[in-house]
Amino acid sequence: MNTKTKINSQVRFFSKWPSGKDFKKDGSLLIYDQLLISNPGVKKLISNFPLSYGLSSGEQTKSVKEWALHVEKLISLSHEKSIQKIYVLGGGSIGDFGGFVASVWKRGVPLVQIPSTWLAAIDSSHGGKNALNVGGVKNQIGTIHYADEVMIIKPLLESQPEERIFEALGEVIKIAMINGKTLWKKIESVKKWNSKQLWTLLPNLIDAKYLILELDPYEKKSLRHVLNLGHTAGHIFESFYQLPHGFAVSLGVEFAVHWSAHKGLLSQVELENIFLSPVWSRWDECHSTSKLRMLHYENIIQIPQNDFLKYLVHDKKNVSKKLKYVFVTGVGETEIHEVSHLDVLNELKRQQKYFS
Amino acid sequence: MNTKTKINSQVRFFSKWPSGKDFKKDGSLLIYDQLLISNPGVKKLISNFPLSYGLSSGEQTKSVKEWALHVEKLISLSHEKSIQKIYVLGGGSIGDFGGFVASVWKRGVPLVQIPSTWLAAIDSSHGGKNALNVGGVKNQIGTIHYADEVMIIKPLLESQPEERIFEALGEVIKIAMINGKTLWKKIESVKKWNSKQLWTLLPNLIDAKYLILELDPYEKKSLRHVLNLGHTAGHIFESFYQLPHGFAVSLGVEFAVHWSAHKGLLSQVELENIFLSPVWSRWDECHSTSKLRMLHYENIIQIPQNDFLKYLVHDKKNVSKKLKYVFVTGVGETEIHEVSHLDVLNELKRQQKYFS
Repeated sequence: MNTKTKINSQVRFFSKWPSGKDFKKDGSLLIYDQLLISNPGVKKLISNFPLSYGLSSGEQTKSVKEWALHVEKLISLSHEKSIQKIYVLGGGSIGDFGGFVASVWKRGVPLVQIPSTWLAAIDSSHGGKNALNVGGVKNQIGTIHYADEVMIIKPLLESQPEERIFEALGEVIKIAMINGKTLWKKIESVKKWNSKQLWTLLPNLIDAKYLILELDPYEKKSLRHVLNLGHTAGHIFESFYQLPHGFAVSLGVEFAVHWSAHKGLLSQVELENIFLSPVWSRWDECHSTSKLRMLHYENIIQIPQNDFLKYLVHDKKNVSKKLKYVFVTGVGETEIHEVSHLDVLNELKRQQKYFS
Repeated sequence: MNTKTKINSQVRFFSKWPSGKDFKKDGSLLIYDQLLISNPGVKKLISNFPLSYGLSSGEQTKSVKEWALHVEKLISLSHEKSIQKIYVLGGGSIGDFGGFVASVWKRGVPLVQIPSTWLAAIDSSHGGKNALNVGGVKNQIGTIHYADEVMIIKPLLESQPEERIFEALGEVIKIAMINGKTLWKKIESVKKWNSKQLWTLLPNLIDAKYLILELDPYEKKSLRHVLNLGHTAGHIFESFYQLPHGFAVSLGVEFAVHWSAHKGLLSQVELENIFLSPVWSRWDECHSTSKLRMLHYENIIQIPQNDFLKYLVHDKKNVSKKLKYVFVTGVGETEIHEVSHLDVLNELKRQQKYFS
């Protein structure tokens, strides 16, 4: 099954490992997460490329100084063979790294993303955004450079530990909540989350993301900002508790839903519909089997206020003292309001009291 | 006089130093060539900005490793105040450096170019292209990020040594030859090149450049490639003889005109019209008063063939063994043909024989 999107990304689904003819090998470089090389399918995939470059995933790789050193090595590599197209195989950090390389290499070459995590397959490989960290501050520089092609490979995704599925569900819940009833209902009908289920739903989840991206591919309007749902508080929880991104986003969505109800943007009935929905309870069941099981929202929310503020202001300092916050007014309905950092802090205090 | 172009760059001409109200100061950073600080006008201009960052011009600054260090310093600076717009004051290398910063800072912020050299005022500040060097290889990474505004300041340009005018004339000849009769005639009527003359012609020269850029702003087609006229051989002469860029381009145009005539693309009459035109002879007069006066084309062309090939292949290695060469079929008429590196070398050999 292939999907051609309006923003000229082609999403291709492979239920088996792709064969050599699925890649444009001439003049292509593959950048990959070297941890994956223990997987025989990946090893074979790499062998298709005349040039390949493995590196470690993680935030360290995304530092602009490290990046400069890697680019120097890539230039030496490219003395042997020219590089006209870049394939990137890995999760979020490798995708960010390689996406930025492709966007500036000879002022931009075509990019193919091959996400190796569910989270990247659902979310980051499609959005066009890449980023590097500068002086320890996350995602300070980057570009928007859409992949010409995203190759979604079932056996690659299935080779991840099950834990990774649970980690990805935060972004699943987020996009379902943005998209609305149809996708939400599909998610509600899931009896048990496993890779088979997630694979079946993947095209719907990806379509829902492109539906938003196509409204505002280069973030000129603020239309794609709704994809930030759950990310304000989510990023803070992620940094403070050192949580997986997707899991932190689900907590951030929870924060947003509670705040929306308190502001009167979401009725009590809708609030209960959301939290009593199987979407949420299945998700809770997942936690209970994972090492994240102790991390209940009522505990998470008791983050020290000083730390919360430090991460909040740090993150947004360079934009302005105000931020655009995504509220939920119903399943499939969001509203963006400008709030101050103080407003967010006050809402934290309120929820801390409520959940104590 | 202001010019609003179709690609949303606004070109503003200032016959005096701009005043504070000509800048958007809030949230703006000025990146400048620190050599210029001895100029009181520049010093005053800098004082308008809440944040400013001076650095040395030249190729060293454009190395990707240096760049990463500078960006870390800029992030520390931006902890004090947010950066939402970047002004860049300098010549070609500072423009490249700062243009790249603006294009990736928070995934792109508005850019204002304030060219401090005639060459940048005529050419590089308008084209949107920026670039960094990687491992000693020039312009390997970069983006196309147009300036929202280009501020052309007469007293700033006039403060350069006269020599710089002569150096810029290569790009003047190039754009006049691409644009055709009207601009060519205007250039022909120039009795003596000085800053007054160049200032008067600047709007025409800039318009001629935008006329090409607007056809193909992001180099998706090869329409803007005609701006490369004179740059294939020009870059080689520039590197080998360590010549100023603009001067080298004029030599490259000469190479292209001779080759075009030899290929039968340009008639003998047209060839003579070009080289006997006052455009060329005034340009020769300029040389004769500058330290470049000994560098006649008939000497330049005797570059060792091995060196010529080394620079030629090095430059184009990563693109392909073929290159798109801009031929001249008349004043205002160019044609792009694909040629091999060997074709270029053979033409060098032919011209070496002819001029010996």
